[in-house]
Amino acid sequence: MKAEIISVGTEILLGEILDTNSRYLAARLPPLGIDLYYISKVGDNLNRLAGTIGRAHERSDLVLITGGLGPTEDDLTREAIALALDEEMFVDADTEQRLRAFFAARGFPFPERNVKQAMLIPSAQAIPNPRGTAPGWWVEKDGRIIVAMPGPPAELERMWEVEVAPRLAGLTTGDVIVSRTLKTVGIGEGQLDEMVSPLLKSENPTVGVYAKQDGVHLRLTAKAATREAAQGVIGPVEEELRRIAGDAVWGADDDTLEGAIGAMLKERNLTLATMESCTGGLLASTITDVPGSSIYFKGGYVAYTAEMKMGLGVSAELIEMHGTVSDEVAADMARAARANAGADLGVAVTGVAGPDELEGKPPGRVHIAVDGGGPAQSVSYTYYQGRAATKRRAVTTALALLRRALLARG
Amino acid sequence: MKAEIISVGTEILLGEILDTNSRYLAARLPPLGIDLYYISKVGDNLNRLAGTIGRAHERSDLVLITGGLGPTEDDLTREAIALALDEEMFVDADTEQRLRAFFAARGFPFPERNVKQAMLIPSAQAIPNPRGTAPGWWVEKDGRIIVAMPGPPAELERMWEVEVAPRLAGLTTGDVIVSRTLKTVGIGEGQLDEMVSPLLKSENPTVGVYAKQDGVHLRLTAKAATREAAQGVIGPVEEELRRIAGDAVWGADDDTLEGAIGAMLKERNLTLATMESCTGGLLASTITDVPGSSIYFKGGYVAYTAEMKMGLGVSAELIEMHGTVSDEVAADMARAARANAGADLGVAVTGVAGPDELEGKPPGRVHIAVDGGGPAQSVSYTYYQGRAATKRRAVTTALALLRRALLARG
Repeated sequence: MKAEIISVGTEILLGEILDTNSRYLAARLPPLGIDLYYISKVGDNLNRLAGTIGRAHERSDLVLITGGLGPTEDDLTREAIALALDEEMFVDADTEQRLRAFFAARGFPFPERNVKQAMLIPSAQAIPNPRGTAPGWWVEKDGRIIVAMPGPPAELERMWEVEVAPRLAGLTTGDVIVSRTLKTVGIGEGQLDEMVSPLLKSENPTVGVYAKQDGVHLRLTAKAATREAAQGVIGPVEEELRRIAGDAVWGADDDTLEGAIGAMLKERNLTLATMESCTGGLLASTITDVPGSSIYFKGGYVAYTAEMKMGLGVSAELIEMHGTVSDEVAADMARAARANAGADLGVAVTGVAGPDELEGKPPGRVHIAVDGGGPAQSVSYTYYQGRAATKRRAVTTALALLRRALLARG
Repeated sequence: MKAEIISVGTEILLGEILDTNSRYLAARLPPLGIDLYYISKVGDNLNRLAGTIGRAHERSDLVLITGGLGPTEDDLTREAIALALDEEMFVDADTEQRLRAFFAARGFPFPERNVKQAMLIPSAQAIPNPRGTAPGWWVEKDGRIIVAMPGPPAELERMWEVEVAPRLAGLTTGDVIVSRTLKTVGIGEGQLDEMVSPLLKSENPTVGVYAKQDGVHLRLTAKAATREAAQGVIGPVEEELRRIAGDAVWGADDDTLEGAIGAMLKERNLTLATMESCTGGLLASTITDVPGSSIYFKGGYVAYTAEMKMGLGVSAELIEMHGTVSDEVAADMARAARANAGADLGVAVTGVAGPDELEGKPPGRVHIAVDGGGPAQSVSYTYYQGRAATKRRAVTTALALLRRALLARG
C-alpha cells in the first residue's frame, strides 16, 4: 500500500511550529506494511490544499492528513477534501448531536460555528475523537482511502492508535517491517562496526551501526509477512549481536541509560548521590527523570564554586594542588557526595562548560569519577561543541561510568 | 516571490529523523519578503524526486532543496535536478580541485566516488561549503531559481546565512515581514488579552497573544517595503504594549527567563543558591545554562529525601508538622539554601513529580519559595501533565517567582 502524509497549517510554513505529527505517523507505517512516498506541508489555503489532496489521492492508495479540522474559518481540510473529490458537504445529525453533548457536559454554550465540525461528505464517515471537538474523516473513494485527523498531537495520537491503525492493519496485505535497536556504551562506533562486520552483510534483517548521543546503537530491521515472522527473523541475529557486544549492551528500543542504571541500583539495593559543577544539576535531574528514583537516589550537590566544594568536605589541599578541574578533585567530590548523603555510591563531574576557559583549562575539559567505597573509577576527556552539548555529553559519560562501576561491583 | 522547500531523505519518510531543516528555512523566508507555499519531503528515489522538483520549478519562483548531496549512490539530488531540467551533468574542474585539496589538507586519500560532488549542469553554479565536502547548487533557468543545499544542519545553516540568504535578499522585491515577540510572566493569557484588546484589531502590525511554556507572549508582525520600515511600524505599538503590560515583560525574541534573571542578579551584584526536591536538579541546571552564571550562582542542593533536607538544616519540626511537600518546608528550604551556600538569595522547590502520590499529596502538587533575607515569597499549585512537564513547569514558575522577588527588592 502506497501512502503519503499531508500536514496542514500556515504556522508550519512560517516556521512557527515544528510539525512532529508527520514524523509520528511516518514511524508507524512500516510495521503496518505501508510504504510512505511523500510528506507535504501546505498552508490554510483552500485551492492549494485541495490541489495537494487531489494529486495525492490520484497517486497514492492512502492519504493521511493532519490539521485543519478546527471550527474556525481558517480550518479548511474538510472543504478541501470535498473540493478535491467534487462532493457536497452536509451536516451529519449524529455528529452534531455528539458535539452538542460534548459542550453541554462541560457546561459551555454550543458555539454555532462548531456545527462545521459535524460536516461530512457522502464518501466520508466520522471518526470519534473523545479528546477534542473535531471528529476525523475516513473517506473511501475509487478504491482509495483518505484519512483526516486533528492537528493537536494528543488528539491525533489517540485517534491513530485506537481508530485508524487497527482499521488499516486489517486492510494491508504487504510485508511488514519491524525494527529492533540494541543500545551499547563503552565500545567506539568503528570498533563495534568491525566486531559485527560479518553480520552487516545480512539482508533480512539488515544490521546498521549508528553513533548516538547515548552510545552506539545496533539497529536490526526485518521484513516478513507478519509481525511475528519478522520478529522470528530478528531473534537469532539479535542473540548473536548480544553475544558479540557482551555487557556493552545496556538496553533496547526505548530504554534510557538512566532507567537502566536505576534498575541496576534497585536490583542491588544500593543508593546513589551526586556532586557536580559544570553539569550544573543536569546529572541529578537526568537521574530523577526516572519514576520511582527516590528509592535509590538520596540527593545531589551542585557545587558551582570551590568554596562550596570545600564546604561539602572536598579537600582544599587537592583543589590547591590540582585545581577544581582535575581527576583528583573529581574523585574527592564523588567520595564527599557519598559520605555527605550517606549513600552507597557517589558520582561526580567537574569541568569547563564554556564558552570561556577556567583555571587555564579549555572549554569541554571534563573529569568524572565514581566512588563506591573503594578506589574511585574515573574518566576524563576534552570535547567542545558548545555549552549545552558539553553538559549533555558529561551526563551521558557519567552514567556510563556509573554503569561500569556497578558491573565491576557485581 | 513564491517559494517552496523540498527535504530529501528516506530516513525522514521512515520517521527515523525529524526534519528540522525545513522549519529553519521556513522561519527565515518572511523577513526576506518570500512567501512559502509548500514543504515536501521525498525519499532517495530518482523519479519521485525529479517529479517533485519539476513540479516545484513549474509553479514556484524559488525552490529550496536540502539533502541528497553526499557522495554515495543514495544521494540523488543533483541527478534529479538534472533530470527535471533535462540537462547533462559534467565534472567541474575547479570544484574537483577544491575537493581534492579538502581531503589532502586533512591527510586523507581522495575517494573517487567523491568526484560526484564536483558535478554541475550548465544552469548551475557551485556554492562553497567550507564545513563539508558537498558544495551546493545555485540553478537559474526560465527566470526561476533552484537552490540545493546539504542536509547536515551545520553545513546548511552556514551556507544559507553566508551564501544563499544575501543573494536572495538582493533579488526579492516584495514586502518583508518582521516579527517581534514580547515575553511576559505573571499575567494570565485571558487577562492580558483583555488588557491589550484595543491593539488586537491592529492590521499592521498584527498583534497576537500566545500562552507558552515560559509565560504569555505578545507577538507583533509587520509588513513593509523594507526591514527598517517594518521595524518603524512595530516601534510605537511595541511601546504601547510595554506600557500596558508593565514589568510583566521580562524579555523579547530569543531571551530566556534564566538569562533575564542572570542579568538582574549581575546588575544588582547578588548571589543565588537553590534547594530542590521534585525538580531533581533541573532548576540548578537551567540557571547554569547561562554562560557566565558562575558569577552569581553559588550552587544548589538536590535534597531528594527528608533525611537529606534535615541534614542541610531544614527544620525537622516543620517537616513533621506539614510534610515535606508544603509551603512551610519550601520556605525553610529556601532559607537553608541561602544560609548553607552563603548566598544573598535562596530559591526552593518541593513537590510531587509523579506519577505516584507522596505523603497523600497528588502528582503535580508543587510549592516554591524565595528567601532574600526577609520573609519568603511563595507560590503553590497543583497541575499534572506527566513527570517531565511537572519538572519543567515548576522550574519556570520558580524563575518567575525569583524575578518577582528581585523586582520587589528593587
